[in-house]
Parts: sequence; structure tokens; C-alpha cells
Amino acid sequence: MLSFPSSPSGLAEGAIAMGSVITLLTDFGLADGYVAAMKGVILGINPEVTIVDITHDIPPQDIARAAFVLGTVYRFFPRGTIHMVIVDPGVGTARKAVILHTADYLFVAPDNGVLSYVLKPYAGKCKAGRCRLAGARAFAITARRFFLKPVSATFHGRDIFAPVAAHLSLGVPPAEFGPPVGSLIVLRLSQPSRMADGSLVGHIVHIDRFGNLVTDISEAYLPARKAGVTVEIAGHTIHGLSRTYGTGRGLLALVGSSGHLEIALRDGSAADYLGAKMGDGIKVRLAVADL
Amino acid sequence: MLSFPSSPSGLAEGAIAMGSVITLLTDFGLADGYVAAMKGVILGINPEVTIVDITHDIPPQDIARAAFVLGTVYRFFPRGTIHMVIVDPGVGTARKAVILHTADYLFVAPDNGVLSYVLKPYAGKCKAGRCRLAGARAFAITARRFFLKPVSATFHGRDIFAPVAAHLSLGVPPAEFGPPVGSLIVLRLSQPSRMADGSLVGHIVHIDRFGNLVTDISEAYLPARKAGVTVEIAGHTIHGLSRTYGTGRGLLALVGSSGHLEIALRDGSAADYLGAKMGDGIKVRLAVADL
Amino acid sequence: MLSFPSSPSGLAEGAIAMGSVITLLTDFGLADGYVAAMKGVILGINPEVTIVDITHDIPPQDIARAAFVLGTVYRFFPRGTIHMVIVDPGVGTARKAVILHTADYLFVAPDNGVLSYVLKPYAGKCKAGRCRLAGARAFAITARRFFLKPVSATFHGRDIFAPVAAHLSLGVPPAEFGPPVGSLIVLRLSQPSRMADGSLVGHIVHIDRFGNLVTDISEAYLPARKAGVTVEIAGHTIHGLSRTYGTGRGLLALVGSSGHLEIALRDGSAADYLGAKMGDGIKVRLAVADL
Repeated sequence: MLSFPSSPSGLAEGAIAMGSVITLLTDFGLADGYVAAMKGVILGINPEVTIVDITHDIPPQDIARAAFVLGTVYRFFPRGTIHMVIVDPGVGTARKAVILHTADYLFVAPDNGVLSYVLKPYAGKCKAGRCRLAGARAFAITARRFFLKPVSATFHGRDIFAPVAAHLSLGVPPAEFGPPVGSLIVLRLSQPSRMADGSLVGHIVHIDRFGNLVTDISEAYLPARKAGVTVEIAGHTIHGLSRTYGTGRGLLALVGSSGHLEIALRDGSAADYLGAKMGDGIKVRLAVADL
Repeated sequence: MLSFPSSPSGLAEGAIAMGSVITLLTDFGLADGYVAAMKGVILGINPEVTIVDITHDIPPQDIARAAFVLGTVYRFFPRGTIHMVIVDPGVGTARKAVILHTADYLFVAPDNGVLSYVLKPYAGKCKAGRCRLAGARAFAITARRFFLKPVSATFHGRDIFAPVAAHLSLGVPPAEFGPPVGSLIVLRLSQPSRMADGSLVGHIVHIDRFGNLVTDISEAYLPARKAGVTVEIAGHTIHGLSRTYGTGRGLLALVGSSGHLEIALRDGSAADYLGAKMGDGIKVRLAVADL
Repeated sequence: MLSFPSSPSGLAEGAIAMGSVITLLTDFGLADGYVAAMKGVILGINPEVTIVDITHDIPPQDIARAAFVLGTVYRFFPRGTIHMVIVDPGVGTARKAVILHTADYLFVAPDNGVLSYVLKPYAGKCKAGRCRLAGARAFAITARRFFLKPVSATFHGRDIFAPVAAHLSLGVPPAEFGPPVGSLIVLRLSQPSRMADGSLVGHIVHIDRFGNLVTDISEAYLPARKAGVTVEIAGHTIHGLSRTYGTGRGLLALVGSSGHLEIALRDGSAADYLGAKMGDGIKVRLAVADL
């Protein structure tokens, strides 16, 4: 199943106070003033906080992509960082707004699956897309005293999530914002299948700016000895795994910086070259000795 | 006429010192180093200031769009914020560079209409596109001791506006930068017309990233009882106003986060669906009881 | 040869401590989480540092463009700024990672030519694309104790460059990160040629967001008396140099904010109008009296 390695070592543990950093991940783009309005609200409440953009270029309403990008980066931020994730097609409807409190981070988001990768270590029993939390706590955001007034029905990022994140960064405990929530929505995450012949069938789960194709096959699925691996994609066969984008020529397969098998094209875009798109299949054959 | 509601409550009044935040709104894009050069200049003068990008994706020289985006966001920043607006096709020519000082904010911009929405509460008598200021003060930027040397004739953002904003953020009074200016250029802002039959004819004044069509019809034009409203646009009729983007299906009309009537498409782009463009007309019919 | 003027005066010298600012210039784009991951790593090590984006929109692997953009902006940052430049097609291969220490700045980058414009004043004898340093020092980055663990072979920006820049900003001396390096790779920079008839033939070295065509002809090549200059480009002839983009009509030639001759189109894009592209030629004729 698609998962990310645990936090790297080398980050200065405890070097930053709880709530010194708020990150923003949205589908708002940067051409309108939406992101700036949220930043203005945050700075009005906590002028000392450092705000970092993760990205605002999530395609409109693409919850799965937002969840993936969040999954690749949140662990690289200092402990106590507040991650605000606003990809929210249900804004203003009955969908919940929540605070998720894990061992290391706070997340402020609609309860619509954007936290799916973050929740993997904390997801207990699931039913109809909702998973019980185990080892993390969540709270519904209902305390209107923290909201801007009036609250627009179409821009909770500005009027609810931003002031809530800002007050969290000032040290207001998560439980002050509303009642506990026992379960959260978790998307069905793409995962590879093991075939009868021992091969793996995986899928493209992310295409990055360079046209690299990130798959749902994490390093744990691959043998230590990478030389015997053969990758088949879109009618092409790649023999062995490379260590870097600058090794060999043409199409390459390698374990990328997210810890997943990636297909890349030396000095080009594998996505363009292969006409690949999200969800496309990829087959990995292991050497007989590795089966 | 197109206007914005006053500042929301819930922002922590007085929590931030004058000049702790400088915002940037330009048509420079982010692919060149222009924006970064301005930030470097600002930080060289005031290393403590917080710089926030509003947007740099204004289409080249589109003063009206810059004015609109500024109008939707400036009020969400803490009091004392310095808003720098550099959409400046006349850079290096006789056009004035000015500081506008309102009750709550400072603006640093060319005098070419980019401050039109900001100026609405302060615009007195107008003549040939210039309006006398009432309740706000403005100053021409002429004191060369604050400029970088040499001043490029083509990049006043870097060589004049950035150092002026940085010195303002250090507490230099606006009057130090040059002589008072009694009137500023104000664009003719789009406004709806009331027809003989009581209906309103408005216009699209902004198309956002999601393809939502923002009109010049502010909430004040609409009856409290929204159910009886009918909206006609591009051959389509929308009955009643929705509260959120997630209500109903197909085309929706609603009052958006800027306080104006918007047309949206559930899970899609109304702009693409209708082939709509800036300036296009929209007709709003009220229920007989609301006329 | 393409060069930039020295730092402007008017920047507050010494107003900022060494290492208070880290800039980022990459080809990562902003749609993925790559840039954010680097920022998270930096803030985990030095929560007080100010991070400024120069641009992340360098076309993938375009070392020459990255070098140019860096050349136009680095001097506008306060002394002691750490400039991190990650356009790195050779990531994970034998290419060196280096720290360059000039009189005023620190640069952290792969040794692949991205520092070419920065190195101009410091480049001594060159051989096969490598130039000996004169008046600046460089160090290879080899001390693994500063790296994240594990180091991804494909994302040194996050796992090596970001923590190194952060530790530099905390005051760790450059020599702590590895052994001195005596020479660095410098690209062959575009330069104009003087013809037998005294005219200059230059080249387009940058096309900016507005479609302005920046050439390799710096102001030093041009006579003080600009009226007699004639510029030929793509079958068009421009008589005399303008001072601003708002002067005259149609195609303009002027000395732009980078100190180089630029071709612009009044209220439009010269690049689109002329169908111009990088490397295209331009001829400058001087008046007889100026030869």
C-alpha cells in the first residue's frame, strides 16, 4: 500500500516551539487574492508566526492529489507545525471541519479525505470510508468565537480555518475549538497487487513537474538487490533500477525521494514520452532468486 | 456600484505594530527575478518586516484587475500593513508615484487607478478621472534620498517603491517622502443598472481560478429573501440563490466571499461552461414582492 | 561580455546579520511539495531565518537561465544572504556540491555552472570550462553529519543543500562542510561581437514575463549619446534608444533594469510580435561620431 517512510533523522528535534510555523496547502491558485486573505487573517492574530506555502496549485477540488502532496512533505517540517489543508468542494455544507492532533503535528482541514496519508499510522477500524482514530485525536471545529464575523458560506479558509490555525499557533488547545471526533474520512489509497507469478502490478499516483511518474510501489516491495528487477510500462521494458536521474540513458526506473518506485526519462519528461496519466498501470518483475 | 463590505470583526485589533507587514501585488510573474529583487531591497532596509505576496499573476499592465484583487483582500490584513501595488505601464514617465494613508493602511503605488477600490470611501469630487481625497491623505514620492542609486527608468518597483515601503515600515512618516497630493486617479468602476421593470443588469468583473464569475452586483442590491431571485446569463436561467458551491447541481448563483453575486458551476468551471468573459452582462430579476 | 553592474547604493549596509536570509532558486516548480520540503528542513534547523523565493519556474534543467536570473538579483539582497541554487540534472552523480564564499554572500549549489555570472569577478585562469577562483573561496560539501539521513539519491536539495544552508545561517563556517575547492565550472557566457564596420552583433539571453528581450549587450558597449544608435532585429529597425517602456510607440530599444540593452513593445510582447527566441541575433549600429 502507498506509504511514506518515517521522518528523517538530522532534523533538529525540539528546536522550534509548538505553533511557530503554519503551512498552507490549497487548490486556490495564486492569481486571485484568496491565499493572501488567509495570510492577512493569520498575521492579524499571530504576527510572529512563520507561514509557508506547500502548494496552491492542486487542481480544483482534487482531494486525492492534495492528500498525496501533503503525505510527501509534512514530516519534513519541525515538530509542532500546523498544517492547514484547504481543498474543500463541500465548503459551507454539512461536511465537518476538523483539527487532527498527532504526536508531532496539528492539521486543520475539512473532513473529506485530504488527511488520508497522514492518517495511515492512526487509522483503526474503517467502515464506509470512515476510520476510527488510534493514537491520534481529532476535534470538530465548532466554536464560533474563533471565527471571523460574518462567516462567508463559500470561503471557510479565510473565515474559519485561518483564524483557527492562528489561534492554535498561539497555544489555544485543540479541544477548545469543539468536541472530540472519533473517526475521520480516509480515501481508498491506491495499492499494488501481487500476481500469481510473483510480479507486482502498481499504478501511477503522482506525476511531478519534471514528468517523473511516481507509483504506489514503495521501497518495501522491492528486493535489496535491485539489479534483477524489470519494469514494464506502456509497452516499454526497463531492466534494473537506477540510483539517480543522471544514470544511464532513456527511460529509467528508480526509488525516488518519496520512497516510491518512479519512472523517469533522462533529460526529459517520462509523462510526455509515454503519454502516461494518473492511475496507469506498471508491472514489476523480480529476479527468480528474489521471489 | 461595485464595493466591498467593511472589515470583518474577529481580527485582533491592534495586535500588530504599524509597518510589520508589507504586501506585494504586481504583474511581474514569478519566472524572472523581479519580485525577489524587491524583497531583497526591502529586507536590506528592514530585516524584521514580514513580506506577503498578494499575487504577481496580474496579466501584464491590467490595472483594473489589480485594483479589483487588492479591493478583495487589503482589509483582511492587520492595521498598519503597507500594501505595495506595482502594475505600472507608465513606469519612468510623468505619472506620479504616491503614498496613500487611510485610517488603517498605507498604500505605495503609481497614481494610475490601481487604488480605485481602496479609494471608494475616500473619493470626493471627481473630474476627468481624478478624485479629491476626503478622509485620507496622499503624498507624492519625490525624496530621492530614499531611492536606490542609480534609479533604473524601467524598474521603479525595485529602485523606488521597495525602499520607500521599507522605510515606511521603519516608521518614517509618509510626509517625509514628498509633498501632499490632493487628488488621485480613480477608474470608472463597473456598476449595475436598474431597469424600468425593476430588474438589474450587472457585469462580470472578475473570473477566478475556479471559473467562478464575480459580478458588480453587491449584496446590498439583493433582497433578504433570496428564494425569489432569478438570474439570467448567457441564455441560461438560474432560479433562486444558493448558499454554497456544494448546493444543488449545475449552474448556481450565490453571494460569494467578496460580497458580490457570483455564478458558479457545481464541480466545474462556470467560465468554461458558459464561455463567459470579463464585462459580460447578467440580468437579475427580483420576485414581485421584493421590487 | 554579459555582466551586471555592481551593487546599487542605498541598501543599508550591515543592517542585517550574516545568515539571516536564505534565498531559493530552483527548477522544481510549485505544484509538487519539493520546495516546501526544503523550507521545512531549513526551519527545523533555524526557525529564525527568513526564506525568500527567487523563482522556482526555471525550465527543468536549464542551468544557463538559472545562472542568468541569479545574476540579475543576488546583489539586491543584504550582505550575508545565503543563496541556494538547485538546478541540478546531475543530482546523485559525481558532480560536486559546493559552497562559494564571496566578499558579500554565500552560495550553496551544485558545481555545474549555475554560479557563472556570480563568478565573473572571481574567475581566474580557465581550462576546459573550469576557472580558478581569485578573491573568493569555495568548499566541497562532504561532511555527512550535516545531511538528513537517509540521503535520497534524487533530492539533494532537501537532504543536503537545505540542511547545509540552514547550518550556514546559524554561523557554522563554510570550511566545516568540506575541503577547499580551487576551481569551479563556469559556462561560456554569451557575448556580443564587434564587426569591422564598428557595429555590434549581440544575442538575446533572456526573455522576461512581459516579452521583453534582454540581450548580452551591456550598457558599457553603448555610447553616452543614445540618440544616434540604430538597432536591427528580425527585419525591424529601431532608431534611437528610449528611456522607458512608456515612451514612443511600437518597438522600443532601451537599457533595462539589468543594465543590458532590451527590446520591448509598447503595451505588448516584443517576443510574440517578433517571434523571437533565446540566442537570436541583434545588430547595433552607432552613429559615425561614436565609433
